Amino acid sequence: MKTDILRGERLKEAEKRALELTSSIESDLEILEEVITINKAHIIMLWKNNLISKEEVKAILIALRKAKDMNLDKSLEDIHICLENFVIESIGKDLGSNINLAKSRNDQVATALRMRLRLYLLDILSSTINLCSALLVRVKENLDTLLPGYTHLQRAQPISLSSHLLSYVFSLIRDAKRLISCYERANECPMGSGALATTTLPIDRKFLSSLLGFDKPLENSIDGVSSRDFLIEALSDLSLIMTHLSSLSEELILWSSKEFNFVEIDDKYSSTSSIMPQKKNPIVAEFIRAKAGSCIAHLIAALTIVKALPRSYNLDLQEINQHLWSACKDTLNSIEMMEAMILSLKFNKDSMLEAIKDPMLLATDLADHLTLTYKIPFRRAHNLVGALVRVSLESKEDLRDSLKKNIAPISQRLLGKEIKLREEEIDKIFNFKEAVNRRNTLGGVSSKACIEAISKAKRSLEKLNLLILKKRESIEKSFKLLKDYEVEAIG
Amino acid sequence: MKTDILRGERLKEAEKRALELTSSIESDLEILEEVITINKAHIIMLWKNNLISKEEVKAILIALRKAKDMNLDKSLEDIHICLENFVIESIGKDLGSNINLAKSRNDQVATALRMRLRLYLLDILSSTINLCSALLVRVKENLDTLLPGYTHLQRAQPISLSSHLLSYVFSLIRDAKRLISCYERANECPMGSGALATTTLPIDRKFLSSLLGFDKPLENSIDGVSSRDFLIEALSDLSLIMTHLSSLSEELILWSSKEFNFVEIDDKYSSTSSIMPQKKNPIVAEFIRAKAGSCIAHLIAALTIVKALPRSYNLDLQEINQHLWSACKDTLNSIEMMEAMILSLKFNKDSMLEAIKDPMLLATDLADHLTLTYKIPFRRAHNLVGALVRVSLESKEDLRDSLKKNIAPISQRLLGKEIKLREEEIDKIFNFKEAVNRRNTLGGVSSKACIEAISKAKRSLEKLNLLILKKRESIEKSFKLLKDYEVEAIG
Amino acid sequence: MKTDILRGERLKEAEKRALELTSSIESDLEILEEVITINKAHIIMLWKNNLISKEEVKAILIALRKAKDMNLDKSLEDIHICLENFVIESIGKDLGSNINLAKSRNDQVATALRMRLRLYLLDILSSTINLCSALLVRVKENLDTLLPGYTHLQRAQPISLSSHLLSYVFSLIRDAKRLISCYERANECPMGSGALATTTLPIDRKFLSSLLGFDKPLENSIDGVSSRDFLIEALSDLSLIMTHLSSLSEELILWSSKEFNFVEIDDKYSSTSSIMPQKKNPIVAEFIRAKAGSCIAHLIAALTIVKALPRSYNLDLQEINQHLWSACKDTLNSIEMMEAMILSLKFNKDSMLEAIKDPMLLATDLADHLTLTYKIPFRRAHNLVGALVRVSLESKEDLRDSLKKNIAPISQRLLGKEIKLREEEIDKIFNFKEAVNRRNTLGGVSSKACIEAISKAKRSLEKLNLLILKKRESIEKSFKLLKDYEVEAIG
Amino acid sequence: MKTDILRGERLKEAEKRALELTSSIESDLEILEEVITINKAHIIMLWKNNLISKEEVKAILIALRKAKDMNLDKSLEDIHICLENFVIESIGKDLGSNINLAKSRNDQVATALRMRLRLYLLDILSSTINLCSALLVRVKENLDTLLPGYTHLQRAQPISLSSHLLSYVFSLIRDAKRLISCYERANECPMGSGALATTTLPIDRKFLSSLLGFDKPLENSIDGVSSRDFLIEALSDLSLIMTHLSSLSEELILWSSKEFNFVEIDDKYSSTSSIMPQKKNPIVAEFIRAKAGSCIAHLIAALTIVKALPRSYNLDLQEINQHLWSACKDTLNSIEMMEAMILSLKFNKDSMLEAIKDPMLLATDLADHLTLTYKIPFRRAHNLVGALVRVSLESKEDLRDSLKKNIAPISQRLLGKEIKLREEEIDKIFNFKEAVNRRNTLGGVSSKACIEAISKAKRSLEKLNLLILKKRESIEKSFKLLKDYEVEAIG
Repeated sequence: MKTDILRGERLKEAEKRALELTSSIESDLEILEEVITINKAHIIMLWKNNLISKEEVKAILIALRKAKDMNLDKSLEDIHICLENFVIESIGKDLGSNINLAKSRNDQVATALRMRLRLYLLDILSSTINLCSALLVRVKENLDTLLPGYTHLQRAQPISLSSHLLSYVFSLIRDAKRLISCYERANECPMGSGALATTTLPIDRKFLSSLLGFDKPLENSIDGVSSRDFLIEALSDLSLIMTHLSSLSEELILWSSKEFNFVEIDDKYSSTSSIMPQKKNPIVAEFIRAKAGSCIAHLIAALTIVKALPRSYNLDLQEINQHLWSACKDTLNSIEMMEAMILSLKFNKDSMLEAIKDPMLLATDLADHLTLTYKIPFRRAHNLVGALVRVSLESKEDLRDSLKKNIAPISQRLLGKEIKLREEEIDKIFNFKEAVNRRNTLGGVSSKACIEAISKAKRSLEKLNLLILKKRESIEKSFKLLKDYEVEAIG
Repeated sequence: MKTDILRGERLKEAEKRALELTSSIESDLEILEEVITINKAHIIMLWKNNLISKEEVKAILIALRKAKDMNLDKSLEDIHICLENFVIESIGKDLGSNINLAKSRNDQVATALRMRLRLYLLDILSSTINLCSALLVRVKENLDTLLPGYTHLQRAQPISLSSHLLSYVFSLIRDAKRLISCYERANECPMGSGALATTTLPIDRKFLSSLLGFDKPLENSIDGVSSRDFLIEALSDLSLIMTHLSSLSEELILWSSKEFNFVEIDDKYSSTSSIMPQKKNPIVAEFIRAKAGSCIAHLIAALTIVKALPRSYNLDLQEINQHLWSACKDTLNSIEMMEAMILSLKFNKDSMLEAIKDPMLLATDLADHLTLTYKIPFRRAHNLVGALVRVSLESKEDLRDSLKKNIAPISQRLLGKEIKLREEEIDKIFNFKEAVNRRNTLGGVSSKACIEAISKAKRSLEKLNLLILKKRESIEKSFKLLKDYEVEAIG
Repeated sequence: MKTDILRGERLKEAEKRALELTSSIESDLEILEEVITINKAHIIMLWKNNLISKEEVKAILIALRKAKDMNLDKSLEDIHICLENFVIESIGKDLGSNINLAKSRNDQVATALRMRLRLYLLDILSSTINLCSALLVRVKENLDTLLPGYTHLQRAQPISLSSHLLSYVFSLIRDAKRLISCYERANECPMGSGALATTTLPIDRKFLSSLLGFDKPLENSIDGVSSRDFLIEALSDLSLIMTHLSSLSEELILWSSKEFNFVEIDDKYSSTSSIMPQKKNPIVAEFIRAKAGSCIAHLIAALTIVKALPRSYNLDLQEINQHLWSACKDTLNSIEMMEAMILSLKFNKDSMLEAIKDPMLLATDLADHLTLTYKIPFRRAHNLVGALVRVSLESKEDLRDSLKKNIAPISQRLLGKEIKLREEEIDKIFNFKEAVNRRNTLGGVSSKACIEAISKAKRSLEKLNLLILKKRESIEKSFKLLKDYEVEAIG
Repeated sequence: MKTDILRGERLKEAEKRALELTSSIESDLEILEEVITINKAHIIMLWKNNLISKEEVKAILIALRKAKDMNLDKSLEDIHICLENFVIESIGKDLGSNINLAKSRNDQVATALRMRLRLYLLDILSSTINLCSALLVRVKENLDTLLPGYTHLQRAQPISLSSHLLSYVFSLIRDAKRLISCYERANECPMGSGALATTTLPIDRKFLSSLLGFDKPLENSIDGVSSRDFLIEALSDLSLIMTHLSSLSEELILWSSKEFNFVEIDDKYSSTSSIMPQKKNPIVAEFIRAKAGSCIAHLIAALTIVKALPRSYNLDLQEINQHLWSACKDTLNSIEMMEAMILSLKFNKDSMLEAIKDPMLLATDLADHLTLTYKIPFRRAHNLVGALVRVSLESKEDLRDSLKKNIAPISQRLLGKEIKLREEEIDKIFNFKEAVNRRNTLGGVSSKACIEAISKAKRSLEKLNLLILKKRESIEKSFKLLKDYEVEAIG
């Protein structure tokens, strides 16, 4: 067990197990690199503001360069103490003891969380865009692939596979926009907030913020160390992505059942059974569906932990971090797996076509036709068709055949006038391909509407890509600046 | 029990209780006005696109004008059927039966939810701004009110009451920005999506969207009827506001305890006991703290319900609505109550001052001073002060007194050199007012830093107010246009 | 607004809106009857212990008899004040003012919650038993109805419909046992705990507890007013029932899709579409599935609200009650709807039989046969069958046909010896009825195993019924005793 | 990457990353020992039922003995495959290939989860009992330690520290009883359920169940592999324990604040600050408070994952396991830490006494006295005391002094008769020690009532201890039997 640089003179020894349980070393691994970067920037800021000597900054920076491979001792409280310990051991107390001057673990950890999170957000954004692109590939291939659209899991109306897949693209584009909003709120810098009340030393928070790639410093130090809404917003955004992916997974599971048989998931994303050799199980889709549950739980953990917590730093906040990292990793993995799986899907167009053939799916078209052509107000037309459907079900006849036989007497009974449809009208109404292409309004399922939607989606994705690029460049630029100062200091 | 306009010819009678349980009439009351407006706009759109006659549009509009007071029958499935029923009963089947031409309950309810939600969002935004303004009033009054800042509920460093209250202002400003982002994603129009696949009729979705005050139509009809991420985003934003309010409530409860005695909550927001006549209980603060728990639960309900739901409409979605409305109302009430309570608080400055007087709170200042003036590297200075604190606690002496006696031998032991502090140095270090004003960096707790923060907060609030105003105006403009068409149609 | 009997002399007037928001009158309606009963029992206990006069007890009891129809004023804090108000107004301050002697709202509400909850628990228990009985009716009818069992929603092995439905019966029996355990922990009496520290008066808590039908008084007064674990345990038990019902609902939704077509849900529990007249939607099943989400959320609300709440009464506890009542009602409704729906189901045995015919489902049987008869160790047999399955899939041949052709060469390749199966062996292996009845071990899917399981289930249900009966009788007996004292007092 | 014993002949290669993500090897480590035990028992059962040879059973058992140290390869799906692989590699395909005869991963994992969980439940039970015993130690020491009881965090009435701590003891005893109930439902055996439909082989499920220490086999195989309510019940019970611990932690945090100063937490369970050397932070209490949030989240994860999942095994179930183990470990750690912390607490009796001295706390006693001695009906007495309190607060006088001056005129005004109290009456009413001991009814705060409560608590704990012991013995007995068979087989 390491000698603790903090408690030595103030508190008696801690119980070993209490120390290990409350230590955050393990989940701090996620922010090791960020904590090193923050220390570099902080020390450079102190030097540039004449708060420490050139000698000190040089020695500390050299030590920090080696810190990535330092030994992480779980009997230490956290990464922050671990790093300070390492630096002081490397270069001695005289040169190293100012590394924590004018800062605290409270502002440092809040800053590191934001820096690590912004990288995850960018990666999740990029992977979301990639998933959309993968979906668009399949959209373009399937403009003429027809299948039933479902409501309440009952066949409702004929749609194109493209329109169905496009529905996920547009949901995911909103998800990506949410991540951008979240990024902008997360990318503000708490450094300089100190324990909660800034510091008595004349530090330069704006300079520090810009060295670390933030848009600006946070405006209040107590808010800076207390608030975790930036990460809860992220957890909520990830939960929404995961619910979208869980729905897509659910459909892949349904569709790859023998009963639907609409799709075959590649062997790569399937397993078999330890006992039933014929089985091919859609385990990756199930994995993603389940992870949605875990992601929601991580969000709840964070909300429940911050609820009714007084300002400012309380150790409870530390417990949230592992939930954040788990959610980030699970979401990233799920999106990337989904992308690969989507690209490998084999759609069984024949099964889809078989499913769409039931003329029942065009009951709405029949009602619309009666309204448009025969001026039967819609609800009456709807009732008339409802009656025809019922007769057809009861007599187990195809709706088309039943229609021919029964429309005259039923319309007579319900509307007081006899309606008859010509053969070519009926053919037109019950032509599935035409039916899909009749749904041609903005956002519709026709191939024309889908083609328009594809270009809109592409434009949105391009804009998003540009935003991601800019954010990545802005971080790189800051880190380049930091590097320049580092070189100047080390000489 | 009403005769059902839908099922009559298609299905046999429903069980009464099944009908009542699955009916959404009760929670649909929230969207009654929106559903009427949508029907007006839809019918005008149909007319302008020559899909129904002038006579029909006129009759339907006249009926819709009376619909607000129609009888809501809980044996009907929902508000949509109820309204169609009412119109047809009012003006007869011949004139009224086209009211549902080219639309469905699925797109209509999604549209109405968005319209009602956007009003709630604007009201919650306005009340959030008002709460910030109320806090700023107290901030300005308390620039020189000093109290201990706490971490881990232990007195940490002296701060100003202003800086503490400002921390909530800046958290709430972020909350408001989140609501704006959410508003923009919510304000897109699903109308025209039909059941899931738009319609075979040549409708004009852009015109309809603009009549209803939306920014634009949604780009895919299946997404339009399936997606509820807009409202889950809202629930998540409300949960974040409520966690901030729950922390503020927690502090008001703590601070109004006899032990802290920092604040007196007005009698208006308190109750007494049925058995202990001396009691004065902070029940409004407790109410808000508890509502944070309910709000989180409403969010979870929504996430759990949409998880793994296949596209497109499933009745499960209906269950979410009551959670949404409860969360909106609870949040609005909580913010408004908090605003009133904040304005009525009496701060006990004497108790705060008493609490801050412990020289222990300036241990950091002592360490900083040793570093700055005596060039003792910070961690060494921190250890030295730690040792002085321990001695002072063990001897039950005031830190100042203990310091004078012990700094020389302890510094000799720990640093190998004897440090002595002059009386006036010590006075300066342990002057609380100066200590607060020494924390003068951007975002700090000094009165100067707080004054700067106030003007930044004000600028943010003004910007937000302008955005809210614009959004309200844009809705009004659309509704004015709708009204003009209505007048034109009715003549 | 009523004059408040409590605050009058102690606090200035409350703000009307604060009062309305913090008032629990609305959700207290659930416990109106229980609060009246508690007051009766309490007043009788005071009288029997000579703490109030015969005259007082008589007057108060007469007033309490009318209290059920009293006017509930939402500007009053809660039902407790409302009732005390009503009694004092009815019989005057001199006779009525002792009604709250030696008790508090804190113990009274905790007692009333337990009394109301135990009724809900008994009703939910009875309805769970009824649902099990309904399922058993269908189990008995379908011992020979065969269908595929699924894992990962892939057809796995043939099972009987009986065994499938029995799986729910046994899950629900565990749920019922949980409710019994919960009941026993809930049925302990807090009355006499007072605000938190009992009372200075010599009351008789055991007598009071027995008058109210409780098993015994709680052993510590602070625990008595602080703890809500009894109701959170109930919420958790309800959530488990609802997850079981949600799975059954999910299967009914799947099975009533055109693709599965295993079941037809009665029109009574279905709706049609406002636009697609052919639709028949399983809305009651969807309703139940969604309610599972709400029930989980109510549980979370309660857990989140009590988390980190200090002892003893805090107003936060009041917020939990509405979650409890909603969950109780939703669960009771869901179970009863499910029972009715189950009894009305039409199973499509033909579709099930069609689905089971794929010889793939008997791949395990083939492997088992190879192990048993040909002494091929199981994993080798499994691999051999896996290879046969693959060839059969690739050649799109029926597994039986493919087997005959390929088992010899493939076994030669994989095992180094040639296996051949006789025609009658193959017939036996691929006979579905026999395959189900081969699975004849305890808990198996054969009709024999199912018949045994039915009698075990029945015995469990009978035992549960007996327990419910005893609990109901015990309450009735106590209430009878209370009634006797009432008659004695009123004379 | 290992060659997969399952998919080889059936499916093409899996994608490496898909394999790693869906692999449960890591969280399966928790059940390694249990899986080995199950395999031993299963293989012995097969042998005793003449399904495999003596030679096979011997070879497999010898291999299984070494399996604890086998290499766990994360490219394998799970522990089950890993173990089978290991056995076959150790002893060859001819001897090892029957290890999975007549069982499946589905029943095996459900069995192993229950076996591992029951150990955790026993350990958590024992630690809960230990925590109760630790609390009882402090209870016995503090029968005469007085402090204010709080409601709404306002001082309410004087209580003894013993009664306060006892309130947790009785809450925890209920928690322990819940765990016992849960244990009994969890300790039923799924083995033999196979994939979902048992097996075609004549296995002996009762024998297997008894070898593994279960009370009996589950009655339905589909229920056996599908149901996870046993573990969700456990998660819910753990959540309740954690909410109780979170409240106790909250109070320790409050009480160790300078403002309360009721308790000093030992240095062993505290930390200091990286910047403020005077700080002593109650981090272990904060750790436990936060873990309550995580535990609730694990419960939600499980509920959300099983919601609407069709029967029988779906991979989603695997995701739940890590939540279960995390919750078990966190709860166990929290209870044990709490026990140690409780034993180390130093109570500041002087601060408590100071806090109790406010005569306001005895306002109820004054009202009770007026009712008992002067026959002023309670609500009138309560109002009279309320008025006295208000005057005392407004005049900033001690309630005793104010009382003497004002009771006569105020009683005249409110009651129409003048009340005067003698000096010795007042002394008696406002004697704090007497006031606590006046609260002497069953469950009260007097030392007499607390002493009675202690013996009741002890009896409950002894009963629980006995139950735990019996359960441990029953498992040991089974494992002894298993061992005997093992020895017989290996010879």
